[in-house]
Amino acid sequence: MSDLHEQVVSHMMNHDAFSRWLGIEVLELKEGYSKIKMTIREEMTNGFYVTHGGIIFSLADSALAFACNNRNNLSLALECNISFLKQVNVGDELTADAKEIHNGRSTGVYSINVINQNNQLVALFKGTCFRTGKNLV
Amino acid sequence: MSDLHEQVVSHMMNHDAFSRWLGIEVLELKEGYSKIKMTIREEMTNGFYVTHGGIIFSLADSALAFACNNRNNLSLALECNISFLKQVNVGDELTADAKEIHNGRSTGVYSINVINQNNQLVALFKGTCFRTGKNLV
Amino acid sequence: MSDLHEQVVSHMMNHDAFSRWLGIEVLELKEGYSKIKMTIREEMTNGFYVTHGGIIFSLADSALAFACNNRNNLSLALECNISFLKQVNVGDELTADAKEIHNGRSTGVYSINVINQNNQLVALFKGTCFRTGKNLV
Amino acid sequence: MSDLHEQVVSHMMNHDAFSRWLGIEVLELKEGYSKIKMTIREEMTNGFYVTHGGIIFSLADSALAFACNNRNNLSLALECNISFLKQVNVGDELTADAKEIHNGRSTGVYSINVINQNNQLVALFKGTCFRTGKNLV
Repeated sequence: MSDLHEQVVSHMMNHDAFSRWLGIEVLELKEGYSKIKMTIREEMTNGFYVTHGGIIFSLADSALAFACNNRNNLSLALECNISFLKQVNVGDELTADAKEIHNGRSTGVYSINVINQNNQLVALFKGTCFRTGKNLV
Repeated sequence: MSDLHEQVVSHMMNHDAFSRWLGIEVLELKEGYSKIKMTIREEMTNGFYVTHGGIIFSLADSALAFACNNRNNLSLALECNISFLKQVNVGDELTADAKEIHNGRSTGVYSINVINQNNQLVALFKGTCFRTGKNLV
Repeated sequence: MSDLHEQVVSHMMNHDAFSRWLGIEVLELKEGYSKIKMTIREEMTNGFYVTHGGIIFSLADSALAFACNNRNNLSLALECNISFLKQVNVGDELTADAKEIHNGRSTGVYSINVINQNNQLVALFKGTCFRTGKNLV
Repeated sequence: MSDLHEQVVSHMMNHDAFSRWLGIEVLELKEGYSKIKMTIREEMTNGFYVTHGGIIFSLADSALAFACNNRNNLSLALECNISFLKQVNVGDELTADAKEIHNGRSTGVYSINVINQNNQLVALFKGTCFRTGKNLV
């Protein structure tokens, strides 16, 4: 993890109240890449006693943010889509890793796998972002 | 709102810890339709001081759940996609209404608009669900 | 249909070999809006004797192109998604109308309904485009 | 390629008029997997002299069909999304390979990469299908 990537993501985490609420831990960062982790708590479940889809999306969306912003070029998500593949329960540990599929001048595309503690794919996420050209730090 | 719809959604809300954390209020329910509301709090923001995309997705995903389950046929989201159109800030009041585009025997498709207190569209969400054939209540 | 919209779309159609192969007819054009039509032929079917999904996508994608380019600001599709709702057969007449959901400086979002001759929705399409700032004509 | 996979796909190709028009060649088949190829012709271009997005989608959609049907369980695409990453020109040779991300009892999810003759990723496609339980052959 280079100094710049670290600086950008540490800036983001310091101000990212919701990622802190989620309990997100940054495992790895590289240019255009991030790997993050969280554990599912009771308050993250929905009306069927399983994890709310929005929680799984939020984890993937945070991975996207850490990956697409870590060159210090403020990037905003335009469109994101997610396939829910497997039920997630309280106590599950989810890891999301965001890979850069395309790094254009004005836009970027990222593919994010979300796996559980048994290495099972629980969600597949694709995100498209727009690069504003502004610095984060 | 018929008795069954009310019963199903009240059952869902009673068990949906995350929708309660979000502060979701159900405004309207009809067969295959729901309209819900929430207010953005400080702890829902991301590293850029704006509302985390996962929060907006979560609101739309809850609207989807209330709409696609209210016939008492347990339905699970397969694929959801969202376009983020406008920045959402702390204090904004978001309303999501989920319209049924397709009500198939085994699957359903829903389109959800998320608007702010000024009637501006802040996100457009499309969700596909699978109907399990099991009852909720 | 203003002179500019007409000029841009006529330029596009003159050079759009595939839209001509599809037999696309432009029914209506407004700033950020288009409505187009085609009839399904035998050679457009797939291995199940029904219309290939790619044909329905192509019609919607052409509607998107006519809508998002008609201000003479060359726009490229970044991400498109489509829900297939109803089987389409040979002889069916499909109409696609592209509505502008968001007209940003650098990007745009369009929602396209594809209906058949009986006014039944056969597909719902959402497209995000990037505006290059270059003129078409 | 097992006998059954070959039989199913040969049945599909024999009846798939549009895949024949596209000039699709099947390179490889395995359970839940397909790899196919085509060459871009003049009549596949759009109003900007580049390949119509619908052509690239169609190739990926055919790869999806060959992958998700080759267990002889008739499957229908519910939702497909595509990111367009790189311009495709006349003469380009595109290869699409469809990988099974999830093989559920009632649904399946596939990720399809479309690359050109220089091994550059030109599009990323994700498709969700519904399994009808009917045989193809």
